[in-house]
Amino acid sequence: MDELQLRELLESVRTGAASVDTALDQLRHLPYEDLGYAKIDHHRELRQGFSEVVFGKGKTPEQILGIASRLLERSRNLLITRTTQSVADRLASICPEAEFFPLSGAIRVWRDRALRGKGRIAVVCAGTSDIPVAEEAQLAAEVMGNEVDSIHDVGVAGIHRLISQSDRLRMARVVVVCAGMEGALPSAVGGLVSVPVIAVPTSIGYGASFHGLAALLGMLNSCASNVSVVNIDNGFGAGFVASLINRL
Amino acid sequence: MDELQLRELLESVRTGAASVDTALDQLRHLPYEDLGYAKIDHHRELRQGFSEVVFGKGKTPEQILGIASRLLERSRNLLITRTTQSVADRLASICPEAEFFPLSGAIRVWRDRALRGKGRIAVVCAGTSDIPVAEEAQLAAEVMGNEVDSIHDVGVAGIHRLISQSDRLRMARVVVVCAGMEGALPSAVGGLVSVPVIAVPTSIGYGASFHGLAALLGMLNSCASNVSVVNIDNGFGAGFVASLINRL
Amino acid sequence: MDELQLRELLESVRTGAASVDTALDQLRHLPYEDLGYAKIDHHRELRQGFSEVVFGKGKTPEQILGIASRLLERSRNLLITRTTQSVADRLASICPEAEFFPLSGAIRVWRDRALRGKGRIAVVCAGTSDIPVAEEAQLAAEVMGNEVDSIHDVGVAGIHRLISQSDRLRMARVVVVCAGMEGALPSAVGGLVSVPVIAVPTSIGYGASFHGLAALLGMLNSCASNVSVVNIDNGFGAGFVASLINRL
Amino acid sequence: MDELQLRELLESVRTGAASVDTALDQLRHLPYEDLGYAKIDHHRELRQGFSEVVFGKGKTPEQILGIASRLLERSRNLLITRTTQSVADRLASICPEAEFFPLSGAIRVWRDRALRGKGRIAVVCAGTSDIPVAEEAQLAAEVMGNEVDSIHDVGVAGIHRLISQSDRLRMARVVVVCAGMEGALPSAVGGLVSVPVIAVPTSIGYGASFHGLAALLGMLNSCASNVSVVNIDNGFGAGFVASLINRL
Amino acid sequence: MDELQLRELLESVRTGAASVDTALDQLRHLPYEDLGYAKIDHHRELRQGFSEVVFGKGKTPEQILGIASRLLERSRNLLITRTTQSVADRLASICPEAEFFPLSGAIRVWRDRALRGKGRIAVVCAGTSDIPVAEEAQLAAEVMGNEVDSIHDVGVAGIHRLISQSDRLRMARVVVVCAGMEGALPSAVGGLVSVPVIAVPTSIGYGASFHGLAALLGMLNSCASNVSVVNIDNGFGAGFVASLINRL
Amino acid sequence: MDELQLRELLESVRTGAASVDTALDQLRHLPYEDLGYAKIDHHRELRQGFSEVVFGKGKTPEQILGIASRLLERSRNLLITRTTQSVADRLASICPEAEFFPLSGAIRVWRDRALRGKGRIAVVCAGTSDIPVAEEAQLAAEVMGNEVDSIHDVGVAGIHRLISQSDRLRMARVVVVCAGMEGALPSAVGGLVSVPVIAVPTSIGYGASFHGLAALLGMLNSCASNVSVVNIDNGFGAGFVASLINRL
Amino acid sequence: MDELQLRELLESVRTGAASVDTALDQLRHLPYEDLGYAKIDHHRELRQGFSEVVFGKGKTPEQILGIASRLLERSRNLLITRTTQSVADRLASICPEAEFFPLSGAIRVWRDRALRGKGRIAVVCAGTSDIPVAEEAQLAAEVMGNEVDSIHDVGVAGIHRLISQSDRLRMARVVVVCAGMEGALPSAVGGLVSVPVIAVPTSIGYGASFHGLAALLGMLNSCASNVSVVNIDNGFGAGFVASLINRL
Amino acid sequence: MDELQLRELLESVRTGAASVDTALDQLRHLPYEDLGYAKIDHHRELRQGFSEVVFGKGKTPEQILGIASRLLERSRNLLITRTTQSVADRLASICPEAEFFPLSGAIRVWRDRALRGKGRIAVVCAGTSDIPVAEEAQLAAEVMGNEVDSIHDVGVAGIHRLISQSDRLRMARVVVVCAGMEGALPSAVGGLVSVPVIAVPTSIGYGASFHGLAALLGMLNSCASNVSVVNIDNGFGAGFVASLINRL
Repeated sequence: MDELQLRELLESVRTGAASVDTALDQLRHLPYEDLGYAKIDHHRELRQGFSEVVFGKGKTPEQILGIASRLLERSRNLLITRTTQSVADRLASICPEAEFFPLSGAIRVWRDRALRGKGRIAVVCAGTSDIPVAEEAQLAAEVMGNEVDSIHDVGVAGIHRLISQSDRLRMARVVVVCAGMEGALPSAVGGLVSVPVIAVPTSIGYGASFHGLAALLGMLNSCASNVSVVNIDNGFGAGFVASLINRL
Repeated sequence: MDELQLRELLESVRTGAASVDTALDQLRHLPYEDLGYAKIDHHRELRQGFSEVVFGKGKTPEQILGIASRLLERSRNLLITRTTQSVADRLASICPEAEFFPLSGAIRVWRDRALRGKGRIAVVCAGTSDIPVAEEAQLAAEVMGNEVDSIHDVGVAGIHRLISQSDRLRMARVVVVCAGMEGALPSAVGGLVSVPVIAVPTSIGYGASFHGLAALLGMLNSCASNVSVVNIDNGFGAGFVASLINRL
Repeated sequence: MDELQLRELLESVRTGAASVDTALDQLRHLPYEDLGYAKIDHHRELRQGFSEVVFGKGKTPEQILGIASRLLERSRNLLITRTTQSVADRLASICPEAEFFPLSGAIRVWRDRALRGKGRIAVVCAGTSDIPVAEEAQLAAEVMGNEVDSIHDVGVAGIHRLISQSDRLRMARVVVVCAGMEGALPSAVGGLVSVPVIAVPTSIGYGASFHGLAALLGMLNSCASNVSVVNIDNGFGAGFVASLINRL
Repeated sequence: MDELQLRELLESVRTGAASVDTALDQLRHLPYEDLGYAKIDHHRELRQGFSEVVFGKGKTPEQILGIASRLLERSRNLLITRTTQSVADRLASICPEAEFFPLSGAIRVWRDRALRGKGRIAVVCAGTSDIPVAEEAQLAAEVMGNEVDSIHDVGVAGIHRLISQSDRLRMARVVVVCAGMEGALPSAVGGLVSVPVIAVPTSIGYGASFHGLAALLGMLNSCASNVSVVNIDNGFGAGFVASLINRL
Repeated sequence: MDELQLRELLESVRTGAASVDTALDQLRHLPYEDLGYAKIDHHRELRQGFSEVVFGKGKTPEQILGIASRLLERSRNLLITRTTQSVADRLASICPEAEFFPLSGAIRVWRDRALRGKGRIAVVCAGTSDIPVAEEAQLAAEVMGNEVDSIHDVGVAGIHRLISQSDRLRMARVVVVCAGMEGALPSAVGGLVSVPVIAVPTSIGYGASFHGLAALLGMLNSCASNVSVVNIDNGFGAGFVASLINRL
Repeated sequence: MDELQLRELLESVRTGAASVDTALDQLRHLPYEDLGYAKIDHHRELRQGFSEVVFGKGKTPEQILGIASRLLERSRNLLITRTTQSVADRLASICPEAEFFPLSGAIRVWRDRALRGKGRIAVVCAGTSDIPVAEEAQLAAEVMGNEVDSIHDVGVAGIHRLISQSDRLRMARVVVVCAGMEGALPSAVGGLVSVPVIAVPTSIGYGASFHGLAALLGMLNSCASNVSVVNIDNGFGAGFVASLINRL
Repeated sequence: MDELQLRELLESVRTGAASVDTALDQLRHLPYEDLGYAKIDHHRELRQGFSEVVFGKGKTPEQILGIASRLLERSRNLLITRTTQSVADRLASICPEAEFFPLSGAIRVWRDRALRGKGRIAVVCAGTSDIPVAEEAQLAAEVMGNEVDSIHDVGVAGIHRLISQSDRLRMARVVVVCAGMEGALPSAVGGLVSVPVIAVPTSIGYGASFHGLAALLGMLNSCASNVSVVNIDNGFGAGFVASLINRL
Repeated sequence: MDELQLRELLESVRTGAASVDTALDQLRHLPYEDLGYAKIDHHRELRQGFSEVVFGKGKTPEQILGIASRLLERSRNLLITRTTQSVADRLASICPEAEFFPLSGAIRVWRDRALRGKGRIAVVCAGTSDIPVAEEAQLAAEVMGNEVDSIHDVGVAGIHRLISQSDRLRMARVVVVCAGMEGALPSAVGGLVSVPVIAVPTSIGYGASFHGLAALLGMLNSCASNVSVVNIDNGFGAGFVASLINRL
């Protein structure tokens, strides 16, 4: 039942064509969500500020391109994560602004560059191997309208590299920290800043890193109280959460 | 070396009592942090808005009471988590405002009730067994200066209970969600709101809940992108992160 | 908004006191679930045939007794799981029909013994140590209106004990199988019958049973295709699912 | 010893060619199951309604085709799971009705489309990536003689999509729910319906999904009591169990 | 149907009172195992040489004493594992020969001391903390009629202690090796002897021993090919398997 | 120091060419094992009856062929496990009797077929997918001089298939049981025989089988006391242990 | 055979009382280790510098006191770990110098305080809850003859506390670092010093710390190359390894 | 702020160009680490004796070659781990001394062969499959200036092979032990020597070795107190730690 149908029902009541009881009965079993919730859902995505993201992994190139085309009809920006150069090449033919980032495997269309976040988001990573995940976070945060400050290779085993970046860290309104192996960096960063820290464990490491489990557990047990955690390698999620926070 | 000593050293340079090289040498090996970082640390805690928390578990009553006394000298508020009625009784003799919350085992002194957060924090829990963790989150958020709206017993197996609270959820600036067993509630809440959701897995359950592991993994894999996660049963941490966000 | 309020709104439309647009607007933001879903929820519980169950673990005696009293006002039957003799003694003072089952720690009030299931439910267990879980399944199935046939101590290491019960097994419309240690019994039973088998891993065992994990994994990997699984020690859940199936 | 031999033995007793003691001795050590149980086994498969399924994974194309040919001699229907297009192509040469489903990798011969189930089976999945598993469940349920209603992409993070399908869900006699990541959907569906729910965790996800473990644990801990669980990605098993239930 | 009933049936065939077809039909549906398998089961236990064992854990003192009394009526020996001094005291009143072993918590009645094993069983343990498990193995092997040679405290970190026992080890026909912590001893023993080694991981250790998991995994991965493994702390099982081997 | 050198040293003492103290000193630091233990090691391998086995996995074809050539110089039999057809082809050029078994990836040279075991070894497997592991066990047992009776496809979900093989099982002196998925078969077999059962979990399965972990845990928790376990897929180890037992 | 016996054998050869062949034969089967290895074992313990340690957990007070008495007869120092005040009280009656440390549950007799280590050992811990483990390390290192510098409460979430201790850290010849929760401290310390770091994960934490597993995995994955790890809570082991290093 | 800038600031104070307060303020916010810690970091690497190592895995050939070229400008030695022959070939064109080790996948430039360690490092491995990890340890230790004694194939299942190497082991100042499967070798070696043992679990094995987890847990639970552990397959780390110890 869409708005039109509801209006018709109410008109029938007004004109007496339908009794109150009949209308009451129809409304009781109203597939309410078909009327309003779809809209609300639509609004929700818009309010969250970025519905234009495609998780590429496990989708065929055709599926990705199909979704992307449809999204680009109504949106100036677009982010496709975990996809390939060849998908990017095909997308470029219909959207020349599409840019491929080989480290993270992301495609970004970034035509609307208006800033929506109130401050700066710092995206920090522990080692060069964590950069792909950090890049995904950065791309997400930027395309959602945030200024991002990327700080790379400041792992805790060379703690002065991190401390020398204290000022940049303190200028951020929210900090994303990506780290693999022992995943210790969010704790150290968390102690240096007074804003929320979104920790992203990465699958970087070998042996007892168990594909990111060690980093994940480390971050969940952080002794810094301002740290919360997203899934292993989920750079997009961290960038998304950080964007929501930065809009508050 | 504190500020006084540094001033004296600079005075010596100014008066010629110390050569530049001598001063340079002392500064090079300066325990820099003894001067400034202690203060910064102090400032950081103040900036984060709440240094007055004691994690009671694993501390003797004497230790807790000692720390609490010292904190109460300089602070109007205090939160002690995971402690006992008997500690509360002893604390009451020196601080009559101390209130004990038996569900979560927390003691709170809440004399300064000024609001510091810009909006409301919703603290949601799935079942009545999750209330102790939710209570810890609520106590933390309140004592840090936030208005908290507690919504209990809205687990996903009775999804309409949750949906009927949509309006309250949408009025929050940040949402804390506590759930044990399958830990599905943060995903459902995450889809209803457009603000950050802090998920707290609880150790409620038995068998294959593995003391909260099932809920933890569920929350880390949430299909709602606005969810980040803290440690199992870490109500305090969720309340702390939510407070930081709500001040932004 | 309850039914009365909705009726009033529709009357206002009918009489012209409210315009169609006004009504449309109110309905669009209608807290729909406050009207109908609460009822539906209520109906759902009744349709599922047994809302009168209390999970005792983690609740205080007062909480259990309070909930039980309220339930007994509107229901002839009641099941409280994972509770104690002392709760049973206190309940007996207000409900003399309450019976305590020390093995499973359950209390049952079974005044309405009408059969609602269409056939018989067999509840099978591998060893005597699994009987508490089997008993919980049996109590649940019986109180929901099923005839239950209990078959104990037919573990696979003495396979002829099981085969000698083939006829009884084949007379069941659905079979619940409880087993700890290696959890092999559901596979063997699954091969003997042509009806659904609900497998309940129990925490019986030691060492590499890892509190029921071994049995759980075994049952999930059953080579019998008619087996589905519930949580470790979840006798109630198995009895509940079996009851739903037996009503079909 | 087959029936013929047993008859001969009894004839010998009747004619006196064998004494009662001799016969008694032979019967005591009778390989009983060679007589009757093989038949019973055969009957069991028929009674369960579908012996014509081949688990393709780990079998060579020749093995699959050989088994398939033999099954097609005595059966009008056939299901081969987890196989490839090339096997399908080769099978098509001997059975043109064979249809290949690339998402799930299944081949189906569906010549006998008589309905044997008493109602409808709903097969629900959380995201588009879960469709292959849902498809396997649907193919199994259909080929065993059930009407299937497929409901896709109704994950809990957009809970209104699910609620808008409530009526379709409530029309099912049994529901299969496939979900990866946090595996929360069966709990939500379980709360909306009053029939058995068969939950299938899928291996969809990354990082802390640990190849379906997160979804599996979530489903085992479901707070909806009408949920039972099968192995990760075991769409066939769920369809099979649902079919057995639907025939009751 | 017991032997008497079967004899009657055959007599009826012989006298013509029952036709061959009638008998055939009865035999086809014969609860065969009620006739023969129960006996065979009985014989099997006797053949395995020791049915007189009670696993005490999880049984009430009354249950243990009841079973023990019944077993002692027909058997000269008895072993009760994982029980308590108080059970032993009560058993002593009806069986003065009952001896309690506090380390392993076992009770043994050992009146028939005839040797049934063909050689000697060595029971080796790594550290003094492993002795309780080794004792359980020894008690089981002895009461089943084996000569046992106990060799304690020969862990691999003092490898010469082990090597100095090489001759005793080589005189055994089968070797049981109990070890906790890293569980390395079976590999070292396995390399010194040419007979089967039954490895028993013990739960001795702390931290990353994970209650015997480390030892269990170590033993399963033994580079000595003559090692097989039983459950953590399962001294009885190892003694039982060793006894079976020693009778061959 | 070999025997010759030791003899020379003793001769020097006898002739006075070396003093007692000098000899004493040399003996004290004697690399004792270079004299005797190497021999003993050599003897040990011979006593264990089969030193001629090569674990192919992780070795280059050249390494395998080099070792094989050397072993074939002094031995009539040889077993190479986990290798490839191409290695087999190259080996065939120097040893035409070499036979390749593609299921298990083993090469066997079996020129000396004398029986050394005292009875028969049964090698049982649950499903056709477990045959490769069972074949490795059979090849090992045969080449070590045992008569092997292979019983395939008798999984517990069709328990009568297993029971119909009871007589063959009871004729074995030791039984090897290979099973994947839930790994229930060893328990069922263990209950049917009175001899040692060597259980081999296989990695057959998917999802919650976790590459054989489910089967492994199941077997370790077997309620049949005559079961001991080897590593996942370790058919060779099971065949080796069974051979040692069968020689006793 | 001890040295005396060996000398006699050689004398017999010298005098001709024993032939070379006789001596050769005796030497070949010489229980070599009875001669020399026992001594070497003895020497090894002495060389490792501290045989006088008793692991108290799992031993009865009588056993601990018996071992302690014997050790005190030949040694001036003694360390008993993981024991109780009551054992300490009883030991004090025979050794008044025995001192009990309630945090770590250790008893120490420290009469010989000569320094044997060449430098200083730093024992660092992250939080006050880790002090018991750090204390055990300190007690072990001191009683083995080392100067120990204890640095407490310098966790990475307040990184300046750690950096302010850089000079003390750099004065150590080897560093022991104890940390629970995320276990990040060894990486940070490892980056500040150029000497070996022995990391001790502690079981401090809750929820996803899984009793020290998170800290253990973190330390094993340390990005600082100079870190090696001992078991969870194994303060003694760390102090022991550090002592061995400090003697080099 | 580098040393020059600091000197200038102090000169300004001396000359009066800057007031004490101005200087004080600048120093308080001094990015201290930019002055000194960068140098110290640099010195630290030099003091640790080997900054010239590249972890090749996860880096592109171009990245590896770029870093290597830069390092070779200021260093005579270089170690690249976990890389390929093709990278080695390309490096050889700019540095002919570069040697590739195919087993471990390492490239080494070893022009400065001066010994810096005070004694010998023994690198021991259990089986031939562990040699790649041992080789990585050896290459690291050698290029850092140590004499290395490699002892291969001395696993505990042939314990005399190990004992025959006792003298070589005892001549080492520190021992690295690499072992997969059950990981028992470090305990045995630890008992034979009185120096620190660095244990390296390898991922060698199958089934329940779980990619090195079994060996890792075994080593962490070693009953030899002189053992500490590094990550699975981390030969480099072990060689690095051993080098640091050997310089003390």
